[in-house]
Amino acid sequence: MRWWKSSIMKEKGEKNLSTEPYKGVRDFYPESQSIQNYITDVWKATVESFGYQEYNASILEPSDLYRAKTGEEIVNEQTYTFTDRGDREVTLRPEMTPTVARMIAKKRKELSFPLRWYSTPNLFRYERPQRGRLREHTQLNVDFFGIDTIDAEIELISIASTLLTNFGMSPEQFEIRINDRAGMSKAFSEMGLSDDQTYKMYKLLDRKKKIDNFDEEAEKIIGAPLDLSKVKSIAVTKLIRQLNEIGITNVKYDPSIIRGFDYYTGIIFEVFDTSSENNRSLFGGGRYDNLLDIFGVDPVPTVGFGMGDVTIRDVLDTYGLLPEVISTTDLSICVTKPEYRDFATLLAKDVRAQGVNVSVNYSNKKVGDQIRYADNKKIPYITCIGDDEVKGETFKIKELATGKETEVTRNTVTEAFVE
Amino acid sequence: MRWWKSSIMKEKGEKNLSTEPYKGVRDFYPESQSIQNYITDVWKATVESFGYQEYNASILEPSDLYRAKTGEEIVNEQTYTFTDRGDREVTLRPEMTPTVARMIAKKRKELSFPLRWYSTPNLFRYERPQRGRLREHTQLNVDFFGIDTIDAEIELISIASTLLTNFGMSPEQFEIRINDRAGMSKAFSEMGLSDDQTYKMYKLLDRKKKIDNFDEEAEKIIGAPLDLSKVKSIAVTKLIRQLNEIGITNVKYDPSIIRGFDYYTGIIFEVFDTSSENNRSLFGGGRYDNLLDIFGVDPVPTVGFGMGDVTIRDVLDTYGLLPEVISTTDLSICVTKPEYRDFATLLAKDVRAQGVNVSVNYSNKKVGDQIRYADNKKIPYITCIGDDEVKGETFKIKELATGKETEVTRNTVTEAFVE
Repeated sequence: MRWWKSSIMKEKGEKNLSTEPYKGVRDFYPESQSIQNYITDVWKATVESFGYQEYNASILEPSDLYRAKTGEEIVNEQTYTFTDRGDREVTLRPEMTPTVARMIAKKRKELSFPLRWYSTPNLFRYERPQRGRLREHTQLNVDFFGIDTIDAEIELISIASTLLTNFGMSPEQFEIRINDRAGMSKAFSEMGLSDDQTYKMYKLLDRKKKIDNFDEEAEKIIGAPLDLSKVKSIAVTKLIRQLNEIGITNVKYDPSIIRGFDYYTGIIFEVFDTSSENNRSLFGGGRYDNLLDIFGVDPVPTVGFGMGDVTIRDVLDTYGLLPEVISTTDLSICVTKPEYRDFATLLAKDVRAQGVNVSVNYSNKKVGDQIRYADNKKIPYITCIGDDEVKGETFKIKELATGKETEVTRNTVTEAFVE
Repeated sequence: MRWWKSSIMKEKGEKNLSTEPYKGVRDFYPESQSIQNYITDVWKATVESFGYQEYNASILEPSDLYRAKTGEEIVNEQTYTFTDRGDREVTLRPEMTPTVARMIAKKRKELSFPLRWYSTPNLFRYERPQRGRLREHTQLNVDFFGIDTIDAEIELISIASTLLTNFGMSPEQFEIRINDRAGMSKAFSEMGLSDDQTYKMYKLLDRKKKIDNFDEEAEKIIGAPLDLSKVKSIAVTKLIRQLNEIGITNVKYDPSIIRGFDYYTGIIFEVFDTSSENNRSLFGGGRYDNLLDIFGVDPVPTVGFGMGDVTIRDVLDTYGLLPEVISTTDLSICVTKPEYRDFATLLAKDVRAQGVNVSVNYSNKKVGDQIRYADNKKIPYITCIGDDEVKGETFKIKELATGKETEVTRNTVTEAFVE
């Protein structure tokens, strides 16, 4: 704890401190936070409806969790990594999957599988701030551990679809594109491609939507045009048929879906906005069965996906699907005379005990100002405490939007809020 | 995004990666997370019942926010501070007050005061991990901005008290001790103490409970015994009377309450556990009217406090007040034959549409194992899908705790959950 002579109080003549947040991160004032809460609430309610349990961890992780021979530069250049005074290298988690893999590995023998787990971590990337790519964002992570059959893929894709429909999107507004990394590797092998050619082809496919000369580049790699129609996946065909059976029809096979993360081992999927103006990728995931390898414990077959808050907030905004901001406060008590403030405080206490969220206006401003204040804060109901209320037994509760007044007693306040 | 050849997959012969979290932070497995969620839920419901609105910000803040001539060593030694590649000094926030002051200062002219704001940030301190002092913890922060009368203190102390009673504590289990920094400074000045003596006396008072030789040390500073009974505060007397009037009677004046934070300017309070075995400080707060100074904007009178998750979790555990962990999942569907999995998936979809949180057991294990699994996961209800259920129209939903069975149809599943 700091002491007495303030470290953050200004001496005369000193330069004012900046009020800007750190570069690439967001401040959430209450209106903006209420939208964040709405997104988190839909995330949680949806995945819990499928039986998922929440877990969490610290944003601080040992850097080793993200480091390996081939990925050294990742730890250093794309993450926030620093050395603490105990000479430990620490990284602010850039994604949640390594953390959850670590947690599962730690209790591999105690945990009763399968596990349905979710989290809504904040994640950090050191990169140039740009639209949808902030340095800190929040992501819903959903994972189903311990099922090696296609039931897990069906469930995760159902959850992905239900999330978007629960946010108010229609199935026409998005499309789920599915590929099969295992099937693809098999097809490339059957075409006679070397490991090196396969690797280069994956890299090229991942860039397919961003480049014009895909065919030309593919031919450079394999010496002949690539015929993606020859790449079939029985697993995907079966998955799509079963998804159709449970009413999810906006799915299609797309052999150009690759997804950058290197740990996927089977089915992968990516959800796209179908808007002709902005046919962007919204989120995705897939099967990763080998992630516990690095911890030296037995493997657990897993399917998972992540959905970022920035992208979903943006797409909901684009489609006009963000909810109107309303206050979590139900009632504002206006106080007409300073000496009635204690009366108002006691009344608020009684009203609160009935489950009503209530604030008291102690500003001593004119009643008109107090009403405008409630309106500005989007508090839907007000009541004014004047001579009559203090002497009598009843109060008038007014709905600001309609002007409708309901007379109640101290113990029947909730009657005013009945629809 | 990383690519293809895994950066986190192990090569043969390589050493296993540790599954331990970073030193001094916690992993929250679902059972532990459900307790965290309970604490957060009580925090939010309580402060929202008083009309408070949630805000938030990034954990990354410019280090300047915590730095000043007198406090330089704080930024370097007690916080996580590092330099990013843009040569910016960044600190993981050690407390929320400077952040909220920055946010208020930034929109000083747009915001409509008074403001009732709260947040539940995670905070970071670089220190030796010890009981109740982890490197990362979560804290409820509550602030009332813009009221310079004692109404603000009454409200904040009411919230502090209501939080503990909402957690199930009785008023006998805690005590609210109040002091007045302004009154104290005035009293010391009247006693003829110099600024230096006053400063030293504050430091000594803050250590009063931890040392045996307070009187001796006090005499060393002021040259005579300190008579705390001479230190009176009219403001505190009035505050205590008004708190008594609204039913908060476990409050007392304690001139040895100082609180370390240097920005307090008036009334300060601290809540203590009254247990004779562990008469510890639980949390506290006070009035700070000058915190916007450093940003060069007009002052806003403010009263606020913070309550940490580690301390409250510990005290609730001590008093046996932590809730029993229950699953957020209501119903587990057991599947007796592999070919009934699709039927179960569709049934789950229908049940979910009725607002029931439901998981399907795709494990293909024996029914007994599936029931034990549901029990282990603390899922309260199960239903088994066998030949009769697939052919017929009804299902039996069994409450595991009582063995009670209810027969329902696909569309009347919720009848089984009526108390």
